Amino acid sequence: MPSTHQPSTSQPSTGDQTTAQLLAAAAAGLAVHDLGRLLTVGMPQSPNHPAYWHSLPRRHGDMVRADGGSAANDMISMGTHVGTHIDALAHVSQDGKLYGGLDADDALEGGRYARLGVHTIAPMVRRGVLLDVPAALGVDRLEAGQEITVEHLETTLAAQDTRIDAGDVVLIRSGWGQHFDNGDGDTFRGLSTGVPGVGEAGATWLAARDIHAAGADTIAFERLAPGAGHGLLPAHRVLLVERGIYIMETLDLEGLAAAGVREFLFVLSPLPLFGATGSPVRPLAVVGA
Amino acid sequence: MPSTHQPSTSQPSTGDQTTAQLLAAAAAGLAVHDLGRLLTVGMPQSPNHPAYWHSLPRRHGDMVRADGGSAANDMISMGTHVGTHIDALAHVSQDGKLYGGLDADDALEGGRYARLGVHTIAPMVRRGVLLDVPAALGVDRLEAGQEITVEHLETTLAAQDTRIDAGDVVLIRSGWGQHFDNGDGDTFRGLSTGVPGVGEAGATWLAARDIHAAGADTIAFERLAPGAGHGLLPAHRVLLVERGIYIMETLDLEGLAAAGVREFLFVLSPLPLFGATGSPVRPLAVVGA
Amino acid sequence: MPSTHQPSTSQPSTGDQTTAQLLAAAAAGLAVHDLGRLLTVGMPQSPNHPAYWHSLPRRHGDMVRADGGSAANDMISMGTHVGTHIDALAHVSQDGKLYGGLDADDALEGGRYARLGVHTIAPMVRRGVLLDVPAALGVDRLEAGQEITVEHLETTLAAQDTRIDAGDVVLIRSGWGQHFDNGDGDTFRGLSTGVPGVGEAGATWLAARDIHAAGADTIAFERLAPGAGHGLLPAHRVLLVERGIYIMETLDLEGLAAAGVREFLFVLSPLPLFGATGSPVRPLAVVGA
Amino acid sequence: MPSTHQPSTSQPSTGDQTTAQLLAAAAAGLAVHDLGRLLTVGMPQSPNHPAYWHSLPRRHGDMVRADGGSAANDMISMGTHVGTHIDALAHVSQDGKLYGGLDADDALEGGRYARLGVHTIAPMVRRGVLLDVPAALGVDRLEAGQEITVEHLETTLAAQDTRIDAGDVVLIRSGWGQHFDNGDGDTFRGLSTGVPGVGEAGATWLAARDIHAAGADTIAFERLAPGAGHGLLPAHRVLLVERGIYIMETLDLEGLAAAGVREFLFVLSPLPLFGATGSPVRPLAVVGA
Repeated sequence: MPSTHQPSTSQPSTGDQTTAQLLAAAAAGLAVHDLGRLLTVGMPQSPNHPAYWHSLPRRHGDMVRADGGSAANDMISMGTHVGTHIDALAHVSQDGKLYGGLDADDALEGGRYARLGVHTIAPMVRRGVLLDVPAALGVDRLEAGQEITVEHLETTLAAQDTRIDAGDVVLIRSGWGQHFDNGDGDTFRGLSTGVPGVGEAGATWLAARDIHAAGADTIAFERLAPGAGHGLLPAHRVLLVERGIYIMETLDLEGLAAAGVREFLFVLSPLPLFGATGSPVRPLAVVGA
Repeated sequence: MPSTHQPSTSQPSTGDQTTAQLLAAAAAGLAVHDLGRLLTVGMPQSPNHPAYWHSLPRRHGDMVRADGGSAANDMISMGTHVGTHIDALAHVSQDGKLYGGLDADDALEGGRYARLGVHTIAPMVRRGVLLDVPAALGVDRLEAGQEITVEHLETTLAAQDTRIDAGDVVLIRSGWGQHFDNGDGDTFRGLSTGVPGVGEAGATWLAARDIHAAGADTIAFERLAPGAGHGLLPAHRVLLVERGIYIMETLDLEGLAAAGVREFLFVLSPLPLFGATGSPVRPLAVVGA
Repeated sequence: MPSTHQPSTSQPSTGDQTTAQLLAAAAAGLAVHDLGRLLTVGMPQSPNHPAYWHSLPRRHGDMVRADGGSAANDMISMGTHVGTHIDALAHVSQDGKLYGGLDADDALEGGRYARLGVHTIAPMVRRGVLLDVPAALGVDRLEAGQEITVEHLETTLAAQDTRIDAGDVVLIRSGWGQHFDNGDGDTFRGLSTGVPGVGEAGATWLAARDIHAAGADTIAFERLAPGAGHGLLPAHRVLLVERGIYIMETLDLEGLAAAGVREFLFVLSPLPLFGATGSPVRPLAVVGA
Repeated sequence: MPSTHQPSTSQPSTGDQTTAQLLAAAAAGLAVHDLGRLLTVGMPQSPNHPAYWHSLPRRHGDMVRADGGSAANDMISMGTHVGTHIDALAHVSQDGKLYGGLDADDALEGGRYARLGVHTIAPMVRRGVLLDVPAALGVDRLEAGQEITVEHLETTLAAQDTRIDAGDVVLIRSGWGQHFDNGDGDTFRGLSTGVPGVGEAGATWLAARDIHAAGADTIAFERLAPGAGHGLLPAHRVLLVERGIYIMETLDLEGLAAAGVREFLFVLSPLPLFGATGSPVRPLAVVGA
């Protein structure tokens, strides 16, 4: 079933014109920015989730058919909040309630989150916006444990001359992803030293703009205070529980920022893992080439 | 790093115009057809691969923080050729060689396919075409073990008045996905009774059109003869090994066909599982609403 | 911490004499009968549990150290009720209660069965008894779906001239394990055709003898009626829930029976998987050589 | 098939006498010392292997049958060199060769170590000896990175007045397991700070006594020099590759040492994971109570 962003009251020709416009754009040449991190054994992730592992049960040559053909295959084990990923609304509860006041136990069916699980997230093909906070502040990256304040967000919007519309996907760059790139997993995780990001105020500011989803280039989206671990997550509560706004984490925003892209077609297609609380994803930011 | 479909020789304004065109299309209203199957424990899949399993190590209430917040999470194990998925070029070899004549052993590095692994598949944002074979033939679905011949393919193109361009993604509907929908896993797998699809001739016909990727609504993309199991896969050899054309399997094409869509913007973003031979995916067919 | 079968009121010398006796027996020559099935990918198991899978992430040669040394390793995923295994008391509940009337929810701590989980099973070094029912009945093996009645059990005891003591481990052979040996997984599982074993009456008879654990050479220990699947398990209720007697399944009893062993030192050491409901095991029957 | 430690040339009555001796010992009262560590998510292990994870896909109440019964089950993923475990001979190679000069590639069949894999380790029911080195040296535990020298081993044997026979299993206590007990995983692993244990000389000394297997209460059995990681393992080469002597790691030897046990019946039953390089185990030291 298609998910339609807005009621289509048009005669067929309007839809066809839009399709033609999309295909013309593709023909004109697109730059597809890959916002997903490579999934590798040993990559930095939260210790709360099963680590990503991969092995090849069969390699070429292990079993060769009479005609000389051979197939290799894979075995994967992992959590869903590893690598670049999206949080479903079923991921976080407050006082026993999920988004919309749904009792967390009532969301379960046969041991999985039949309601508000990640399989209920419709694929996204929407306007996306990058807020490049360190660029606006004139630094390479924010500091460990630094809170991205409402003032920082407004300064960034003004510096970029970008607007946020209802329904948009908003990606907030802190520059912290550089620690993922350079292999410094402990700093990226920041369990003892902290990680920059929005706090409750910034999340409230985002929610007030009625966005569809938010993301960041850090492990937990929101600010982690030095020494506080991953224990207190007020921005998760505001976005997931109170407002039904999805959260994406561990995005790779370095290339997008370097290319100067601030506005784009955002495309996301989470795996429809029935009843799960999240999914690894590989989001795309698409612009003209 | 963005992957650019064609060299961008334009001044910035052309790219910006294309971006504006994409965003205008999104604003005009899009229908996003989801071509991915729900991932559920027990769904039909090939017995050659680790089955999809999911469990919630933590449910809400298992560990509640002092502030009343709680997070639930997941544990997944699976192969990569399960559910809707894409085959990387490293998946199949012939006489010890992968695509481009690369020795299969030389593609390995540290026990994974560092070369031609699924992480080397660039995200796709391209023109897509549906070939609705049963619609063209006037049947609900093809027969078990029926080969989709070159004549069938040309008849379908003509009946639909569709063209195939170089670089397109071509999806071939057999109607066999109805057996996935209705829960008849044994028939869907067809290990003893067979599955419809193209054979070597159809694959060669597709390859001659210089397409980027091909897909079908069946477990193995190509025809499986009754009683032959999954042992002989000539279309895989032609596409993956000889021509470097990706293959997608277990697509859900029923909704797309029912909506009468034949041409669309195809979007695919495989998980960049380093060194793996495939990835579960959730492909999208995007058209105007 | 050692688990002591009976209060040791002896002076040290008695314990030392027993130790000397054990070591003398070992020196005299032991026959160690292996009652565990080989764990292989694709072996017959219940579809209710994650299948056993194994892969080698690193093979020799993948990463060789400067000194010429190399290590290979493994990746496993599985349920616990696969292969030869033991059921913990936390495995089965009746009307929401586990053994001893413990509320099943109260047995959970942080999402695992902290109480009555498989880690609470003390290793067993005890007298074991084999009841070779088909030998007593003069058949190669029992029929699909045949119930082992109380009369069968008493006939077998008499035919063998074996006694059952309180605290013993009793293994019941049906001969059905031959289907595991010969690779006929569907017959071994017997989901549609049934499996022989004790019913509620036989379980009650066993429980009345105050045994410590019971086992069989079948997938579910107890009789499965043809066409009934694994849905109704009264012997599990009697043994696990009402009496706290452990159950072992998918034992290999063919060799032990062929050797004519009826009485032995039974040794079992389940993996102490914290909070799990079962464990794969490799039980031993030890006798003089 | 039973594995017989020594050719049985006896008439049946000798074997029966031995069986009677074993059962008399069991009846007299046994103390069964559990040498296996509890398997818990997050326990200290080598980062080279997939971490132990466990989840309950079904808890009681998720699916209740009409008769009020319910079954809970498990999902496990793990490496084999995690928790208390044994190394198969296929685990380590030197210059491409395994034990007995077998080419490592020739040991593979269909992608698993069909030869020298952990399924080829016969269950052990043998004389075992504990060498309590810190007790002999008058310390609580050895130092990080301290080598257990040949002199230490001989001092310990003399202090204990213990002998080592051919075919014995020898367990070497360093006291380092106390760090596992107290939850100090980083110190237990000792990747940067080192771990005590025998070196090449100690391994050669053990091998000269023609033992069957050796074990220790540390993560890698042998000494890890501070800062050297797990990269150089000469004792593994001597024991596994040159002499075919199995190695056990992460044993819990604290209770056994505290009880003053130095000589015991050692029982080990590794999971017969076909083609794997190791297995989690729960070894037992059995003495009179």
